[in-house]
Amino acid sequence: MATTATITPINTFERVESRVRSYSRSFPKVFDRALGSTIFDTNGKAYTDFLAGCSTLNYGHNDPDLKSALIEYISNDGIAHGLDMFTDAKEHFLSTFERLVLRPRGMTHQLQFTGPTGANAVEAAMKLARKVTGRTNAIAFTNGFHGVTLGALAATGNGKHRGGAATPLSGVTRAAYDGYHGPDINTADLLERELSDPSSGIDAPAAIIVETVQGEGGLNAASPEWLRQIQTIARKHGALFIIDDIQAGCGRTGGFFSFDGMGLSPDIITMAKSLSGMGLPLAMTLIKPEHDIWKPAEHNGTFRGNNHAFVTAAAALEKFWSDDRFISEVKEKARYLGERLAAIADEHGLTTKGRGMMVGIDTGSGENAAAICKACFAKGLIIETSGSFDEVVKVLCPLTISLDQLTAGIDVMETAFDAVLGSHRAAAE
Amino acid sequence: MATTATITPINTFERVESRVRSYSRSFPKVFDRALGSTIFDTNGKAYTDFLAGCSTLNYGHNDPDLKSALIEYISNDGIAHGLDMFTDAKEHFLSTFERLVLRPRGMTHQLQFTGPTGANAVEAAMKLARKVTGRTNAIAFTNGFHGVTLGALAATGNGKHRGGAATPLSGVTRAAYDGYHGPDINTADLLERELSDPSSGIDAPAAIIVETVQGEGGLNAASPEWLRQIQTIARKHGALFIIDDIQAGCGRTGGFFSFDGMGLSPDIITMAKSLSGMGLPLAMTLIKPEHDIWKPAEHNGTFRGNNHAFVTAAAALEKFWSDDRFISEVKEKARYLGERLAAIADEHGLTTKGRGMMVGIDTGSGENAAAICKACFAKGLIIETSGSFDEVVKVLCPLTISLDQLTAGIDVMETAFDAVLGSHRAAAE
Amino acid sequence: MATTATITPINTFERVESRVRSYSRSFPKVFDRALGSTIFDTNGKAYTDFLAGCSTLNYGHNDPDLKSALIEYISNDGIAHGLDMFTDAKEHFLSTFERLVLRPRGMTHQLQFTGPTGANAVEAAMKLARKVTGRTNAIAFTNGFHGVTLGALAATGNGKHRGGAATPLSGVTRAAYDGYHGPDINTADLLERELSDPSSGIDAPAAIIVETVQGEGGLNAASPEWLRQIQTIARKHGALFIIDDIQAGCGRTGGFFSFDGMGLSPDIITMAKSLSGMGLPLAMTLIKPEHDIWKPAEHNGTFRGNNHAFVTAAAALEKFWSDDRFISEVKEKARYLGERLAAIADEHGLTTKGRGMMVGIDTGSGENAAAICKACFAKGLIIETSGSFDEVVKVLCPLTISLDQLTAGIDVMETAFDAVLGSHRAAAE
Amino acid sequence: MATTATITPINTFERVESRVRSYSRSFPKVFDRALGSTIFDTNGKAYTDFLAGCSTLNYGHNDPDLKSALIEYISNDGIAHGLDMFTDAKEHFLSTFERLVLRPRGMTHQLQFTGPTGANAVEAAMKLARKVTGRTNAIAFTNGFHGVTLGALAATGNGKHRGGAATPLSGVTRAAYDGYHGPDINTADLLERELSDPSSGIDAPAAIIVETVQGEGGLNAASPEWLRQIQTIARKHGALFIIDDIQAGCGRTGGFFSFDGMGLSPDIITMAKSLSGMGLPLAMTLIKPEHDIWKPAEHNGTFRGNNHAFVTAAAALEKFWSDDRFISEVKEKARYLGERLAAIADEHGLTTKGRGMMVGIDTGSGENAAAICKACFAKGLIIETSGSFDEVVKVLCPLTISLDQLTAGIDVMETAFDAVLGSHRAAAE
Repeated sequence: MATTATITPINTFERVESRVRSYSRSFPKVFDRALGSTIFDTNGKAYTDFLAGCSTLNYGHNDPDLKSALIEYISNDGIAHGLDMFTDAKEHFLSTFERLVLRPRGMTHQLQFTGPTGANAVEAAMKLARKVTGRTNAIAFTNGFHGVTLGALAATGNGKHRGGAATPLSGVTRAAYDGYHGPDINTADLLERELSDPSSGIDAPAAIIVETVQGEGGLNAASPEWLRQIQTIARKHGALFIIDDIQAGCGRTGGFFSFDGMGLSPDIITMAKSLSGMGLPLAMTLIKPEHDIWKPAEHNGTFRGNNHAFVTAAAALEKFWSDDRFISEVKEKARYLGERLAAIADEHGLTTKGRGMMVGIDTGSGENAAAICKACFAKGLIIETSGSFDEVVKVLCPLTISLDQLTAGIDVMETAFDAVLGSHRAAAE
Repeated sequence: MATTATITPINTFERVESRVRSYSRSFPKVFDRALGSTIFDTNGKAYTDFLAGCSTLNYGHNDPDLKSALIEYISNDGIAHGLDMFTDAKEHFLSTFERLVLRPRGMTHQLQFTGPTGANAVEAAMKLARKVTGRTNAIAFTNGFHGVTLGALAATGNGKHRGGAATPLSGVTRAAYDGYHGPDINTADLLERELSDPSSGIDAPAAIIVETVQGEGGLNAASPEWLRQIQTIARKHGALFIIDDIQAGCGRTGGFFSFDGMGLSPDIITMAKSLSGMGLPLAMTLIKPEHDIWKPAEHNGTFRGNNHAFVTAAAALEKFWSDDRFISEVKEKARYLGERLAAIADEHGLTTKGRGMMVGIDTGSGENAAAICKACFAKGLIIETSGSFDEVVKVLCPLTISLDQLTAGIDVMETAFDAVLGSHRAAAE
Repeated sequence: MATTATITPINTFERVESRVRSYSRSFPKVFDRALGSTIFDTNGKAYTDFLAGCSTLNYGHNDPDLKSALIEYISNDGIAHGLDMFTDAKEHFLSTFERLVLRPRGMTHQLQFTGPTGANAVEAAMKLARKVTGRTNAIAFTNGFHGVTLGALAATGNGKHRGGAATPLSGVTRAAYDGYHGPDINTADLLERELSDPSSGIDAPAAIIVETVQGEGGLNAASPEWLRQIQTIARKHGALFIIDDIQAGCGRTGGFFSFDGMGLSPDIITMAKSLSGMGLPLAMTLIKPEHDIWKPAEHNGTFRGNNHAFVTAAAALEKFWSDDRFISEVKEKARYLGERLAAIADEHGLTTKGRGMMVGIDTGSGENAAAICKACFAKGLIIETSGSFDEVVKVLCPLTISLDQLTAGIDVMETAFDAVLGSHRAAAE
Repeated sequence: MATTATITPINTFERVESRVRSYSRSFPKVFDRALGSTIFDTNGKAYTDFLAGCSTLNYGHNDPDLKSALIEYISNDGIAHGLDMFTDAKEHFLSTFERLVLRPRGMTHQLQFTGPTGANAVEAAMKLARKVTGRTNAIAFTNGFHGVTLGALAATGNGKHRGGAATPLSGVTRAAYDGYHGPDINTADLLERELSDPSSGIDAPAAIIVETVQGEGGLNAASPEWLRQIQTIARKHGALFIIDDIQAGCGRTGGFFSFDGMGLSPDIITMAKSLSGMGLPLAMTLIKPEHDIWKPAEHNGTFRGNNHAFVTAAAALEKFWSDDRFISEVKEKARYLGERLAAIADEHGLTTKGRGMMVGIDTGSGENAAAICKACFAKGLIIETSGSFDEVVKVLCPLTISLDQLTAGIDVMETAFDAVLGSHRAAAE
C-alpha cells in the first residue's frame, strides 16, 4: 500500500541521516520528481514550490531547454570533472557570460570559480580583499547571511549558525543594516562616523560585504541610496566593496544582478544558487581586474568549475537573458505578488518585506509563521520562513512560474494567514 | 585552421577568467570530451589521464553505467535540487551506502551531507568536534591538506594556501606526521608526551584530524600502527578522531575507506572527491551516532544533498562495491604500478611515495618534477606533482584503467624521467 | 655651566632609551624633584603639573604624610616584596579600604591585587568575566582606553595603540559611547537592539566594560542615565558590568569611585593610577563575591601586592577619605575650574569636555592643542592633550592643588589659548 | 593573647581578598618585616626565605645600601611618578646600566621601560617582533612561562593559567624545549625541520621566545649548544630571538644575564623581577637598535619608568655588578648548593634540576613536593614548588644568603625529604 511505501524510505533517513537535516522536518514527504514550479512526492502528489531551493531554482525545476542541453552534453561524454582545466563547456559559459552580462553593463570583472558553494565564494572574496588591502577586518551587517564555513560564518549574523562554530569567530566587525535602528537613523552615517574616527576601535576594513536584500535575515531590503553611501564609505576608507548576490541575484530582485540600475560598482560580487540555472552546484566570484591578484591555485578546491553546471548556466543565460522579455515578465509578476501580499498583510495588520520576487510578510512571531507554513503545506504549498525569529513567511517561487500557479499559491497563503491569525485573534479576544 | 580554432577559446579564458586558475597552466589545451582514462582536446587529440581530478575520478570519466543512470534520472525530471528535503535519490543512496558500506563494516555512522566540497565536510567535522567536546583546539599534521576555507585552512599545512588567508589562522595545533622527523622518531610519541603534560602549552584537543595518505602533502603514507596509536591518543585525551578520507578513500589506497582493515574506528570521517563516482560535487561527513548532536540546519548550505550526485554515487556503489572484484583488480594494478615506479625510482636513485593507487616518485626537486610532467604532457600523458616543494610526481589514474593504458602511461613516465634526469645529470657532470 | 649639565643626561636618554618614550618629547627637561603640584627640573626651575601622571597623582607629589609613612615602613625593614603572601601592610590596606570605602557604600566586593598596572587589572577583569559567563565576547566602547596588553588592547579604541599589536585583536565588539552619534541618538538603545536580536551577529557578551569618563578618548563623560541603562542591558543579557575606574576614580570626577551616587553596582571595578596615592605601582580589581571564582594563582604576577604601595594607599585613604572634607574641597575646585574653562572655551567658540577635575577644552584640532600645550610649557605649565585627534587640552592637576596655583595655571592656559587661537584667527582673516 | 592577634588579620584577608590569592595558602602567617634572607611574621618568628619572591629578591630583603638610597631619594622629594618623562633617577639608572652591563658586553640595546610587570615586558617584546617582521606567529616552548596577560599567556605553557583566559589563545606555535622528548632527540632539529618546510603548517615566525632556565616550568635548563642552535634557527628564518630573562637573569643562573658567556646575542631581552634589586616593580625590554621601531607611546602604561625602582636598581648595579666579587661568591654558593641537592636527590633516587642558584629536586609527584614544602615551613623554611605537576622542590634563595643560613636551610630540606619520602616508602612497602 501507498502508506507502507512512504514510510519505508523515511525510516531510512531517520536511521542513516544526521540530525542536522532540516527542511525535511517541515516537509516530511519523499519527493522524486519536479517540473517548473511543481514538485511531486513519491505518491504522485503535486506541490507548488514557493521555496525553490531558497532562490536556487529561479528558472524552475528541470527547465526543458537546460535539461536537454545537459542530457546532450552527458550523452556526448562531455567532461564532467576537470578541476580548473580549460574545457569547452567552461569556455562557452565564460564567453556567454561576458557577452550577455558583463559587456552590456560595461563590467570587466574576472570570473573565479570557487568550490561550488556560496560560502566558498564568500570565503574567496574575503580572503582576496584581505590580500589586496593588507588589512584583516571585514565589515558585515546585522542579520547578514554569508555561509557557515568559518571565514564566512564570521560575517553571518545568525546566532544559531554562529553557535555551531563552537569557537569564537573573528575578523569581522558588525555594522547595522539599512533601517536596522528604525527610520530615523541612517545606519550608514553611523558606520561613516566610526570609520572616520581613528580611535573608534573599528579597525580600517579590508572589505564591506553586503546583501542588497537579506534573504535569511528576514527579507530586509536596502535602499539604493543607502547602498551607494556604503559603497562611497568603502571607497573612502580603502575597503573593497563586496556585494553578496548569492540569493538576491539572477533576476530574483531586479536585473541579472540585484543591484542593476542602482549605480553601484562592486569590487567583488559573489554568486551561486541560481547561477547554474538548474540547481546544480556552481559558485563564483567576480573580481575587478585590478584586484585579481591571486596566485595560481592560491584559493582552490576539487569541484571548482563544475562543467555540468557550466552547460546549464550558459543555456540559462541564452534563454533568459538574451533580451528583456524574461525580466519584464518577472517585474510584472513581482508587481502582482507584491500587491497580493500587501493585501494579506493589511488584512492582518502586518507588514510586507523584501523586493521583487523576494518578498514576504512579517507575521510578528516565529510561531505564527510556522503555523502558516504548516497550513500551506497541508494544502500543497511549500513555503518557508526567515528572519531573526523565523517570523517572516517568504515567497521565493520560481521566477518562471505561471500567473495561474502563482495566483493559486497566494490564495493558499491567504487562506492560511486567515486560518492561523484569525484563530490567534480569537484566542486573544 | 586548427590553430586558430584553438587559440580563440584560450583567449576567452585569459580575458575573462581569474588569474587563480592553475591546472590550465600545466595543460594549456581546451578539453571537451572524456571517457574512462582518456580525455580529448578540442582538436581530437587523446590524453591519458593520470591526474583524474586529483582522485575525483576513481571510476574514470563518464562510466557508462553511471552516465546512463544519470541521464535516465534527468530525463524523468528527477529532482536536481531539493536542499535537504527527503528525495527518492537521496533515500536510494542512503540505503545503498548503508547496505554496501556501513553494515558490512559494522559501522553505525550517521551521514551528513554538507555543502558539496571537501573543505565544507572538514569544516563541519571540526565544528562538530568542538561542539561535542566543548574544546576549541584541533590537532592537524604537517603537510596535511584539508581545504582552503578559513576553518579547514587552519588545519592545512601548505604555506601558499595558508598565505592566501591574509589573516592569522587559529584553532589548530600542528603535530608531526608519521615519519616526518625520520625513521628513528615515532612522532605519535611526541604528541602523546605533549598532550599528557598539562603545561606543555598544547591545549586539550577537540579533535585529531588525519589523512591516512597525504595526497597534496607529497604522498606520505602513515603506517597502520601509527594511525592506531593516534586513535588511541585521541581517545585517551578526550578528542574526536577524524579521518579525512577525501582523497585517499573510495578505493584509492585500499578498501572503500582508506583505513579498511587497519582496526580503526574514527569518530568522524570526511568524504568527497570520488564519492559521487562521476566527478559531480558531493561531500559528506560520517558521524558516530553519539556525536551527532547537530541542531537542525546548524551547519547548512544551499547545495547540501546534490541529487544528481546521489544517483551516480549509488550507481557507483552498486557497480564497484557489491563484491570484491573491483577492489581485487585495483590491488593487482597497484602492485604492478608500484613495481614499475620502484624500478624507475631505482634507476635514478630516487624513492617512491604513497600507497595503493596513490603513489609517486620523489624527484628531489620541484624543477625536476615539473620538467618530467611537462615532458609527459608532450607525449599525451596528464600527470601532476605534489609535496612541500612540488617535488613528487604522482600517479592518480582512474582505478578502472586498463592494464594496457596503465602500462603505456608508465612507459611515457619512464621516458620522461630518463630525458629529464639524464640531462640533469649530464649538466651536473 | 647649567647648559652643559642639562645636555649630558638628555644625551643619555637619546643614546640608551627606546624610541617609544613619549612625554619626554613634549617636556624635554630632566626633572628631579616634585612636591604637591610642583615639579622641578635639574636646573631648579619649577613647573606646575596639570598632568599629574595622567591622574596618578591625585594627592599631589610626595604628600608629606604618605611620604613619612613610607619612609617609616622602609626604615623598619617592612616587607617590600612578598608575592601575594599575607603581610601586615596588605592587611592594613584591606581593612582600611573595607572600612572607609566598601562598608560606607554597602559594597561586598573582594579585592584582587593584579600585576601593578591598570592593563593587568583590565586583563584580569575580562578573563574573569569570560570564566564566569562561559562566553568570550566583551563589549567595549568607541574611544575607550583600557591598556595595551593584548587582551586589554582589544578593548582599547585608539588606532595607534591597536596598530602596535601588529596582529588582529579579537574578543571584543565595539559599541558607541554615550553621545558618540550626536545628541539625538541614544547609543544604549542601539546596543540593546543588537543584543536583543539573536541574529544581529553580536555574540552574547561576557562583559560590558566602560569608563564613566573617557580620559584618553577625549574626556567624554557618560551621563548617569546612560550608564544605568548600560548596566541594565548588561544584567538583562547576562553580561558582567565592569567599570574601568582607573583614570576617573579616586576623587577625580566625583566620590572615591567615579560612579558614586549614580545608583550603579558594577560586578567588577578596575583601579590603578591614584590608588597608591603617591604614584607607586598598584592595581586591583574589585569583584562581587558571587563572581570571585578564581582558582588560586589562576591570574598571577610577580609584583601583585606591592607592599610599599599598600602603605601609601592606606595612608591616603585615612588622610583623604575619612570624612567629606577632601571631596568637598575638590568639588569646589572643580566648580571653579569648570567655570574658568567654560569662559576660555566660550572666548574662542570652543566647547569644554569632561566632568569634575577631569576636564578640558576641545580645541578643534591636534595642531591647536599641541601649540597650546607647548606655549603653556614655555610658561612653566605641564599640560597634555587627549582625544581621537589629540584635540582636547586636558586639565588633570592634583586634586590637592591650592586655589592660587590652580588659578595661576589656568591663567597660563588662558594666555596660551589666546596666543595660539588668536594668531590662528588672524591668519584666517 | 598572641593567638587572637594573629587570627584577626587573617580574617581580614579571608573576608576582603579575592580567592585568587595563592602563596598565602602555603604560608598562612602574616609577615611584617624582612632583612636579607630572613622574613619575620607578626609574632616575631623568623623564617629563612628560599622563595625570595620567585627570584625577585636576588639581593635579599631590604639590602641596607639599596634601602638607604631609596630613603634618601624619598626624603629629598625625588620624583616618585613621572610617566616616561626624563628624570634624574632614570638618567642615573640608564647610564649605570650602560656602563656596567651593556658596554662590558659590547651590547647596544635600547632600553624600554614597559609597565612594571614581566608580562608587560613580554607583551611589548612580542608586539615589537610582530611589528618588525610583519609576521604574527611566535614560537614559544613547552613548559615556558611568560605571564598571564592575553598576549603573554598565549606563550605560556601552563594549563591552569591558559585556562584562566577562558577564551582560545592564538598567535603562538609551541615547540619542544631542550630535552623535552628525552636525551636522544634534539628538539631544535625538530623545529628546524618544521620551519624549513613551507608546508609544515608552522607559519614563518616573528619571534622565538625562550627562557634559558624554565623557572615555573620545572627548572628545566637548556644547554648553551641548544640555545645557540635556536638562535641560529631564528636568524635563518627571519625571526627575532627573544630571551625572557625575567626569572633566570640578574645573577640567578650565571652572570648578569643568564646567557652571559654562551655566545648568544638576543634581539630582545625581557627583564623584571630582581631588576629593581629591592623587589620594587620594574620591567624592561632591551631592544637591538635596528629593531627599535616603536612610535612614541605606541606601547605605553601609567607606571612605565618606576623612579623608586630606578634608584634601587642603580644602587644594586653599583653594589653587585661593579666587579666580579658578587658573581664569584654566587658561583661558589651555587656549587655548594648543587652538591647538597645532588646528595639529597641521590639518597632518594631522585634527580636535580636547574642551573646556578635556580635549582631543585624532582620529587616525582606534586604530593611529595607539597608535603616536603609543608614540612620545611613547619621548621621555619619558606620554599615552593614548580613543574607541570608541581613536582619540583625549588631553591630560589637570595644570592646574598650567608653560607651558614644556606646550610641551615638545606639541612631543613634534607630532613623534610627524609621525613616525607621515607614515610612514603614505608607506606608503599
